[in-house]
Amino acid sequence: MFWTDLSDAGVTAPRGYSAAGIACGIKSPDSPRLDLAMIHTPHPAVAAAAFTTNRVRAAPVLVSFQHLQQASPQAVIANSGNANACTGPQGLSDAQSMAAGAASALNLAPHQVFVCSTGVIGLPMPMERIRPRIPELASRLHPNGSLEAAQAILTSDTRAKLRAIEYRESGSSLRIGSMAKGAGMIQPGMATMLAFLTTDAAIEISALKEVTRRCVSETFNRISVDGDMSTNDTVLVLANGQAGNPIIRSGSPACERFRLALHEVMLSLAKMIVRDGERVTRFVTIQVQGAASETDAERAARAVANSLLVKSAWHGGRAYWGRILDALGYSGAVFNPDAVQLFYDGLEAVRNGCSSNVPAEALHAVVAQEAFTVTIDLGAGDGGCTFYTSDISPAYVDFNTHE
Amino acid sequence: MFWTDLSDAGVTAPRGYSAAGIACGIKSPDSPRLDLAMIHTPHPAVAAAAFTTNRVRAAPVLVSFQHLQQASPQAVIANSGNANACTGPQGLSDAQSMAAGAASALNLAPHQVFVCSTGVIGLPMPMERIRPRIPELASRLHPNGSLEAAQAILTSDTRAKLRAIEYRESGSSLRIGSMAKGAGMIQPGMATMLAFLTTDAAIEISALKEVTRRCVSETFNRISVDGDMSTNDTVLVLANGQAGNPIIRSGSPACERFRLALHEVMLSLAKMIVRDGERVTRFVTIQVQGAASETDAERAARAVANSLLVKSAWHGGRAYWGRILDALGYSGAVFNPDAVQLFYDGLEAVRNGCSSNVPAEALHAVVAQEAFTVTIDLGAGDGGCTFYTSDISPAYVDFNTHE
Repeated sequence: MFWTDLSDAGVTAPRGYSAAGIACGIKSPDSPRLDLAMIHTPHPAVAAAAFTTNRVRAAPVLVSFQHLQQASPQAVIANSGNANACTGPQGLSDAQSMAAGAASALNLAPHQVFVCSTGVIGLPMPMERIRPRIPELASRLHPNGSLEAAQAILTSDTRAKLRAIEYRESGSSLRIGSMAKGAGMIQPGMATMLAFLTTDAAIEISALKEVTRRCVSETFNRISVDGDMSTNDTVLVLANGQAGNPIIRSGSPACERFRLALHEVMLSLAKMIVRDGERVTRFVTIQVQGAASETDAERAARAVANSLLVKSAWHGGRAYWGRILDALGYSGAVFNPDAVQLFYDGLEAVRNGCSSNVPAEALHAVVAQEAFTVTIDLGAGDGGCTFYTSDISPAYVDFNTHE
Repeated sequence: MFWTDLSDAGVTAPRGYSAAGIACGIKSPDSPRLDLAMIHTPHPAVAAAAFTTNRVRAAPVLVSFQHLQQASPQAVIANSGNANACTGPQGLSDAQSMAAGAASALNLAPHQVFVCSTGVIGLPMPMERIRPRIPELASRLHPNGSLEAAQAILTSDTRAKLRAIEYRESGSSLRIGSMAKGAGMIQPGMATMLAFLTTDAAIEISALKEVTRRCVSETFNRISVDGDMSTNDTVLVLANGQAGNPIIRSGSPACERFRLALHEVMLSLAKMIVRDGERVTRFVTIQVQGAASETDAERAARAVANSLLVKSAWHGGRAYWGRILDALGYSGAVFNPDAVQLFYDGLEAVRNGCSSNVPAEALHAVVAQEAFTVTIDLGAGDGGCTFYTSDISPAYVDFNTHE
């Protein structure tokens, strides 16, 4: 590892960023919880983003996608408590109004502001409670505001998710900061998640886009809690160039180091999201190897990670590897069932597609831990991937019957 | 409807079939529950079948698939309590031994016997408790044995599933009888389900295969309980020609009537499987219309039927249509979100992709019923399909943490 951890510094760790969070009563008028966040840099930045692949896209996703096509982004406004999804023309107008309000308070053009929402689908945005508070939110922007901002985007998350690191590059110190929210509708191909990353690196926009795309596909797109994919998922990366490093160009060694650093931060956030999934009690790493291709490895891992029967067994501390083989079988990955090996934390559960001689109780003991790794060798080639998921609990279902 | 119901007559309703079920202690030596079933006809029959599309296929599936390629099937032997899946060469040998044991007791060649298993994956078959009991099972074959046989294939099902009908065809009366088991690992593309259908119709084998394939795709492949697909799924149809009707040929009006009758019986079984899913409390019909194609309609219905968030909401008696739109959005079906209409039992929940004016409480009241219909119009074409599914309960997850 060539980086240093900046503990809980969040999105304001890089030079030239401030953040804030306030309570507007978006979900209910009297709620004291923070629900409106802002991130700002006074320096024109370059940006890269990944949005949900869901055909139903929330209004703020549509607006932010448009703004991404234009130059010099400098701010993000984001709310929790209402997703502004399935809200029609009024929703679109509300998302534009949020961006315009932030732009006005910050002396920017509206297209320089990204807007994100997360929360309940299908209800109108309570703009009368949001719009008048935006100037106050802007006035609270502060280099120490990253925790407040991170708290203001949470929904059913139980804790704020922050990460920041620093590393040396060509005589400069580069920093990457971040915050995210997850909790429900978490699945590969993006989730109900928002992630905002900031950096003071000077990097050309094409390099930032390329690196972001790859890092998202290898981190946020390889986690799963419940197999649902949301209408609002957004990952945003802002780079304001304040570190003073020689500009990072695509394909350079500096770009490769930046990619590794960005990967590290995104992976931290992705793992935090799994660990803080709704009513999750186990953190499971699925390591697939020997697949016919990387695509097949992902298919296999995803099918296992999304199987309700597998996740229920894990919740009960049972190894039940037959359910894993069953999920592999319908995953679409190509393999010979008689060539499959499966390990729980290095203990052999399956040899050549059949039960090993390891006693079931020893395997159950691995699964009873808070965190463990399932290693699956499909015996079909060189493809591999690492995937992160959780158990599923009766409490998850119970929670989602009313929330 | 051109048929008459034969109430609970099951697989022995058609002429020339007998059945039996006994308790061998397959799951545990002292269990009194019936776990070994047999169906027999003394008349050489023709057969059609559909097997799991899971890449991991249980040994009895492999053996039955082989036997299907040969002539004159006359019997089925099936057990519950052990799936004989992921059991390697020994499992294959055990499945062959079950067929051979039945053949010997019935004076048939082994290839005239189909063999099916359902239950726990990955444990060796207790052949020492099964093989010696096969002659006794055969000796108990009886025209009134259909209920016993239907009980002997159940796993976590709470009740036996039987259906039989009769209709007039070209001066003869044709009968179709059936039994099935479902409960867990139920999802489109087949499930942990076994279904055995018998008929006394005289029908050419090519017609029987064609009709069976179509009926399976429109019934058993359009249900979902938990989204998992098993290693053992099998639908078998035996036709022994004892009704004395002129042989039914492919493409004839008689073949079309036979198809409708077979569809009716399979659909009954499929619905019984959903209603008796593990810890199910709601029976939900999903009616998709206005899809760009029938394939898209199925994709849309399946995504909704398998969404854990949608199913959790239903369990709690909440309409939460935003979760349905979210699932439609990632289903892969092509549509414009602003053109979607959605109804709960005829009550308009979504108009043009946004909330209708119907109060949420009225929609929740529909979902609080034991059975209701969700109608989704994608506004993208003429494709449609009907799909059957259930809620998911905390008790389902709890049950599957240890079972």
